[in-house]
Amino acid sequence: MAVGESQLSNLVPVAGVDLATISAGIKTPGRKDLVLIKLCEGTRVAGVFTKNAFCAAPVSLAKAHLAQADTRFFVINTGNANAGTGERGEQDALTTCEQLAVLAGVATESVLPFSTGVIGEPLPIDRITTALPHAVSELHRDGWLEAAEGILTTDTRPKGSSRTFMLAGAEITITGISKGAGMIKPNMATMLAFVATNLAIGQQQLQQLVTHAADCSFNRISVDGDTSTNDSAMLAATAKSGVAYECLSSDEQRQFQEHLDALFIDLAQQIVRDGEGATKFVSVVVDGGENTEACLKVGYTVAESPLVKTALFASDPNWGRILAAVGRAGLDNLDVTAVQVFLNDTLIVERGGRAVSYTEEAGQAVFDQQEIRIRICLNRGDYSETIWTTDLSHDYVSINADYRS
Amino acid sequence: MAVGESQLSNLVPVAGVDLATISAGIKTPGRKDLVLIKLCEGTRVAGVFTKNAFCAAPVSLAKAHLAQADTRFFVINTGNANAGTGERGEQDALTTCEQLAVLAGVATESVLPFSTGVIGEPLPIDRITTALPHAVSELHRDGWLEAAEGILTTDTRPKGSSRTFMLAGAEITITGISKGAGMIKPNMATMLAFVATNLAIGQQQLQQLVTHAADCSFNRISVDGDTSTNDSAMLAATAKSGVAYECLSSDEQRQFQEHLDALFIDLAQQIVRDGEGATKFVSVVVDGGENTEACLKVGYTVAESPLVKTALFASDPNWGRILAAVGRAGLDNLDVTAVQVFLNDTLIVERGGRAVSYTEEAGQAVFDQQEIRIRICLNRGDYSETIWTTDLSHDYVSINADYRS
Repeated sequence: MAVGESQLSNLVPVAGVDLATISAGIKTPGRKDLVLIKLCEGTRVAGVFTKNAFCAAPVSLAKAHLAQADTRFFVINTGNANAGTGERGEQDALTTCEQLAVLAGVATESVLPFSTGVIGEPLPIDRITTALPHAVSELHRDGWLEAAEGILTTDTRPKGSSRTFMLAGAEITITGISKGAGMIKPNMATMLAFVATNLAIGQQQLQQLVTHAADCSFNRISVDGDTSTNDSAMLAATAKSGVAYECLSSDEQRQFQEHLDALFIDLAQQIVRDGEGATKFVSVVVDGGENTEACLKVGYTVAESPLVKTALFASDPNWGRILAAVGRAGLDNLDVTAVQVFLNDTLIVERGGRAVSYTEEAGQAVFDQQEIRIRICLNRGDYSETIWTTDLSHDYVSINADYRS
Repeated sequence: MAVGESQLSNLVPVAGVDLATISAGIKTPGRKDLVLIKLCEGTRVAGVFTKNAFCAAPVSLAKAHLAQADTRFFVINTGNANAGTGERGEQDALTTCEQLAVLAGVATESVLPFSTGVIGEPLPIDRITTALPHAVSELHRDGWLEAAEGILTTDTRPKGSSRTFMLAGAEITITGISKGAGMIKPNMATMLAFVATNLAIGQQQLQQLVTHAADCSFNRISVDGDTSTNDSAMLAATAKSGVAYECLSSDEQRQFQEHLDALFIDLAQQIVRDGEGATKFVSVVVDGGENTEACLKVGYTVAESPLVKTALFASDPNWGRILAAVGRAGLDNLDVTAVQVFLNDTLIVERGGRAVSYTEEAGQAVFDQQEIRIRICLNRGDYSETIWTTDLSHDYVSINADYRS
């Protein structure tokens, strides 16, 4: 189950990027589970990674390789996270890179490995190395949609987004794919995203751009940001458009960041819409906070409250649970009589209790919808933040009780 | 559903305490929903209350009254939390106290009100005031068990505990009742506890005793401590034994604190065992932390991880999820290779991965049990903490999707 129609139809190739998606039999025979993304010479790569102390072996190695050499390959396997696998896991991740490097004639440090799937099982490294030659032979520029399918785990549908626009007289493309089906709570599942553009962008600017884009997207669907063992979001700039970010006007640079942010937000929202067991897509908007932290505290507490989530699942406009969540969010000296809560545009709470104008029918009409906006006005300042989340359903429990992720 | 046999058989009366439990028709006709606890003159009372900014009207009033006068009555209603009810809620709580004060011939400030149930609905104050005379006429010293039943909401069984022991030549009794069925996560439901002893205890000591007891019990089953709108734990000392805490030796004082703590822990664990949809009773033990905060961070992160909880429900020893939770608990400079994880006495994780000696069968044997201990050794210091929790089941979702709490 997922909320709304799939938005994925066409993904535009990015000059300088080739992809291959094959089946290596890592966990389920016949399932597409190994993806290569090849980047042309001269490509710059930056990314953000999980902050989990038990970060997976491929994450440690990807970070190290990224710092050591220009990146030419992403190699991604699903079916096994290669996390909690100790020294053997580190060796297996390295072997994957070494084998691909030999086949492709690049340095081992030019290969970044990514894994997603079950934690704590050794990576079936032989199956991967055996499959790599076939994967290399399959590389082609139109492979984005297949790759979007090849990186899935409990996801019910592929996730991707493309944008094409003119900048400084050149056609600029940004295309990306993402995966992750359990962002209902921050620790649910690995989130991976791979985005590429044909713009030329220097390393430092690229890191700033991807950090900003991830902060307003993937870090707004999850309280602790990147908390799984394997989360990674990568941005590659191939320079094939012949236009350089550094040569753009500040207005054009802003345009590019806006396009990039919007694409990241699209990828992040697709993850929420496909959240495990999701039946609702919920935007929690917090207005009038004294700073960003205050807005996020309230937003995350509401978005992650199991009581709010089960009420959303039941389509029960039980606003008392929203109120209780705001009250325990940990704001100092919260004047509860100043707080207003809206369901879409319907005022439900003011002066510490139910709004006089509120009717159960009005609340029910909002909660009956698949897409719901809960807006909390703190009236303490000028800051605003939005968190995207979903409900907590029986299917969520079934998926996580049955699937060893 | 609840885990294990009900431990409640007999509750020993406490000299100086009378109780009444009647039906006022607050939410469900015929259901016992109004409880009075009368305390003899000379009784000292102390308590701990929710820290939720949207604390319920009765909580605000109980705190104010407690500071203003000696307490003679607790009046507790279920079926309605009188929270998120604004000024009207405050007036309703006050009216309840005033009416009872007139009937009983005590000061209004001698009455502490408590409410639990649905948030945001006005209290049916007329039904309560109409029922109060009948309640007063029913007061009797053997009413603890009925009272334990009268304060329940989604609980499936009453919770109570008694201890009788000799101190300084006198028979000392401590008896208490508690309610709360949703401590799976900290914001699940109102937790109430009412405990009395026939020891004489001065106000300052009483507050210290109840704070300590609550910290090692109710505040070890919930990350944010007292986070619902209505949580309250009250301790009354009637002095009827003729023995005063202040006159005990330090060894006897320690004995009393140990009995009190044990009784509070018993009441808290009964809440966990009756957690909404619970099929497992889980102790998360964190050893070797550098301080209490570090132990609690790790313990709560594991105890509240939906992925760990659904694995417990499925009886699936998916230890990778435990590892991932430890890793994202936010400890500085965590050396993951030093962390050990045990299921009961079975070592499952060491040196960053699965223990060599671990077998899936051994883990399965533990997870097949109803009572499970997850022990995490951080090997960073000498501190240790235990959190009690339960699993996340389909029944949990059903209860909270169907019940407007």
